[in-house]
Amino acid sequence: MNQSEQRSQRVAYSKLVDFTTDALARMEVPAGEASLIAKSLIDADLKGVHSHGVVRLPVYIERLREGVVNPRPVIRSSRDGLGSCVIDGDNGLGHLVGHRAMEAAINKASSNAVPAFVAVERSNHYGAAGYFVEQATRAGMIGFSFTVGAINHMAPWGGRQALLGNNPFAMGLPGAPGRPPVILDMACSVAARGKIIVAARNGESIPDDWAMDAEGRPTTDPVEALKGLVQPVGGPKGYALTLVVGLMSTMLTSALFGTGLRHLYDDMENEQNSGHLMGALPIDLFTSPSDFGDRMEEATREIHGAERAEGVDAIYLPGERESLAREHSLREGVPLGDGVVSDLITCGKDLGICFPT
Amino acid sequence: MNQSEQRSQRVAYSKLVDFTTDALARMEVPAGEASLIAKSLIDADLKGVHSHGVVRLPVYIERLREGVVNPRPVIRSSRDGLGSCVIDGDNGLGHLVGHRAMEAAINKASSNAVPAFVAVERSNHYGAAGYFVEQATRAGMIGFSFTVGAINHMAPWGGRQALLGNNPFAMGLPGAPGRPPVILDMACSVAARGKIIVAARNGESIPDDWAMDAEGRPTTDPVEALKGLVQPVGGPKGYALTLVVGLMSTMLTSALFGTGLRHLYDDMENEQNSGHLMGALPIDLFTSPSDFGDRMEEATREIHGAERAEGVDAIYLPGERESLAREHSLREGVPLGDGVVSDLITCGKDLGICFPT
Repeated sequence: MNQSEQRSQRVAYSKLVDFTTDALARMEVPAGEASLIAKSLIDADLKGVHSHGVVRLPVYIERLREGVVNPRPVIRSSRDGLGSCVIDGDNGLGHLVGHRAMEAAINKASSNAVPAFVAVERSNHYGAAGYFVEQATRAGMIGFSFTVGAINHMAPWGGRQALLGNNPFAMGLPGAPGRPPVILDMACSVAARGKIIVAARNGESIPDDWAMDAEGRPTTDPVEALKGLVQPVGGPKGYALTLVVGLMSTMLTSALFGTGLRHLYDDMENEQNSGHLMGALPIDLFTSPSDFGDRMEEATREIHGAERAEGVDAIYLPGERESLAREHSLREGVPLGDGVVSDLITCGKDLGICFPT
Repeated sequence: MNQSEQRSQRVAYSKLVDFTTDALARMEVPAGEASLIAKSLIDADLKGVHSHGVVRLPVYIERLREGVVNPRPVIRSSRDGLGSCVIDGDNGLGHLVGHRAMEAAINKASSNAVPAFVAVERSNHYGAAGYFVEQATRAGMIGFSFTVGAINHMAPWGGRQALLGNNPFAMGLPGAPGRPPVILDMACSVAARGKIIVAARNGESIPDDWAMDAEGRPTTDPVEALKGLVQPVGGPKGYALTLVVGLMSTMLTSALFGTGLRHLYDDMENEQNSGHLMGALPIDLFTSPSDFGDRMEEATREIHGAERAEGVDAIYLPGERESLAREHSLREGVPLGDGVVSDLITCGKDLGICFPT
């Protein structure tokens, strides 16, 4: 199901959460917030989206150690309106700041019966965009989450300069009763750069349409790809998507964009000042949740029941397969590639804690 | 720049607006609304997006003639909140209903200083999604526009049944002062089906990755492609996009989805009951328009100034090329393919009006 599982082991969910929480706590992140961040991070691994899971923990720890991420941010809002505010993340970890920002959007939407959008500045890499949309769907709302990528590795269409992040976004709706939410969570390249990182960690090759090397040539070597640029999905469509998502995430606040962006891995001297835009749109502003649920159930059954192509066993809605993977991994353990585990063992050793193998 | 211009002629903008307005008025559309609809439709041609321009006029006229579109809708809102409502389009032409819906979103956002979203039911094919987002950007707002495609010609990922429209959506921001807005306007296939319609009208072939024929084989023949399915951009990404856009456009109201959808061209007996979702997010909720403008100017200059790939003369932001094309066509005339013109001449004859060649 995922490249990284080709050589992988399973780690019990609770042990992985404890390890990750402890690692963050060693870097002075308060216990409650460390636990929230750990769960957010591992949620990606549970869903099989390993590119945004614990593979990222070492760089977060390194940034905390270098003092370019604030372990104890005081997250504040300003320009508070009925359905909007600006959140200053105080340079906290993006998972925490993003969670609080979506929480603020949900609270405003719920208290004031309006759509609510929250623009975020002074945040950091926030992981998988879909996590925040799920916060909204659990509250009975359509969710939107846009962010600027933490590294510029896409060029404007027609260009060859890395001016743009592979900016991720997610949009989704609550599912029918008893079913998972329907969530689109994508970046704007043919494949997420995080997948290239995982492939590099695990010594695997990548398809030749994912990336160009530093000279602009297609490559199947993930190490060379990480020195080059990733390709936008659908050519100009992917470029337009990544630019608009990036602008929506950064132009409303002081968040950095373009040449101003600070590289997640290479720049250990400056805070990232990542920007996000979170939105929450209560279903009950438009229709009764029960009618909505009935309609979603009908739509879901139609999709599931579609005539299948040869060799296909089942048809899924976006987010459904991830939800099934999460259930499975909660029972059986979180699958982690050997390269990722090796990095986490090293990361743990540096902090004086044991990785639970 | 566009296939349809390979064999094309230019028609003066004002004459094309008059012809289109007259054609609609002959079908009992009130003059003011006919003019608004004509301008909305021709705006797509001005921008070079001929797939959503006057190539569609004959089918709109036919639907009006068959009585499955209401020429004089009474468009009503219900469930009015500070930043939301449901619009019943009363089966009016989608360009008109969409315009009124975005107008309602903008007015609520402006009057109540909140993000505003409007869900629309009982509408029809609304043309180019970007048109409505431009309404929002002109008001100093980020705009969102989602709709369900008027024909099911995509399959769920892993399926081979046409259960999904190639659902279009647009998102965009006001540009820097004196510059066009930055607008993403895309459907979820590799190429818009409307482009296949234009190619078929003009007797041109299409690239082999755009569509499958009725047997599921790739085809370069647009006539065969129109009997088959279009391919989602980026495989499962395009599927997830089209499904989520379709659900957001239809699940909040009585609008039709899936097997319930009525075919724009083939079903001349039933009203379409198309759904849309429009959103408007005032910039000044988050920052001063002047700071926003400065930031957009800086970002625009960076993109324009990016190192260019070999053979590329200029780099554009999404929507910019369309804006330049519009200026050019307003001066020089609207370029229309010969096949389209021939259809419009016939359409005019049936109505007793002359196409301005």
